[in-house]
Amino acid sequence: MADKLPDMTLKAIGFVRNEVKQPMREGWEKVVSEIVVDNSLTEALEGLEEFSHIMVLYWMHHVAASAQLPPKVHPMGRQELPLVGLFATRSPNRPNPLGKATVRLLERQGNILKVEGLDAIDGTPVVDIKPYIPGYDSAADTKIAPWVINQ
Amino acid sequence: MADKLPDMTLKAIGFVRNEVKQPMREGWEKVVSEIVVDNSLTEALEGLEEFSHIMVLYWMHHVAASAQLPPKVHPMGRQELPLVGLFATRSPNRPNPLGKATVRLLERQGNILKVEGLDAIDGTPVVDIKPYIPGYDSAADTKIAPWVINQ
Repeated sequence: MADKLPDMTLKAIGFVRNEVKQPMREGWEKVVSEIVVDNSLTEALEGLEEFSHIMVLYWMHHVAASAQLPPKVHPMGRQELPLVGLFATRSPNRPNPLGKATVRLLERQGNILKVEGLDAIDGTPVVDIKPYIPGYDSAADTKIAPWVINQ
Repeated sequence: MADKLPDMTLKAIGFVRNEVKQPMREGWEKVVSEIVVDNSLTEALEGLEEFSHIMVLYWMHHVAASAQLPPKVHPMGRQELPLVGLFATRSPNRPNPLGKATVRLLERQGNILKVEGLDAIDGTPVVDIKPYIPGYDSAADTKIAPWVINQ
């Protein structure tokens, strides 16, 4: 495939700042974080505060890069759950360690966004921020796999 | 910031195949696409068919890379809408041209996912696929900006 590929190098647009220094699987709902966006992009955030929720794309930099990624994992690392394809889970061990969170935007102060529920540790590079628009981003009549827990 | 940065180079895990050869702003709802995932990752897709909807992260390769990105844009390119920060819109002209779509998964045949509503043109590199889990990915009590149309 390589001959067709454009250059796909990400630039950090900012970083997460919070009290969580180590990855954790659960308990993110009430974590308040700041997303400190690069000063040069402050103007590009204008109007984001008109939305109650935003989506944050981030790079899970704590995940060890591995040439040999296991194709199947136990969801949430729980051995009692079946081994399933990594793309059928939210495991951070994926070919591109991109995380995507939908979070409440509490406030914007210039280049700093205060959000609730972002499941990313302190220092995580942020690569994109998008407004959450239910008509595009939510789905009705959904079915989820039986192994999904905590939801 | 550069001294802190991990290497953030994306690998395509697959490509979009559909009949849409040129970008378009609207009319994606009924477009059926195939996501042709690299053969080496077929096993990593197992179990995804247990979900009715998936999220697709893709690289908007048709967007011209530009050193000078305007920080503000008219949403949907409509001049009658106010100029707002690019992060307050879904414009493809963003520092990292990542797209994120929530789509219905019609079926999986080995390494090929057939989906409905993916707003990406033929040949678009796909960088991640995640199950759509309403408890993580949807939000209630949302407020959106008044300039959001078609939703």
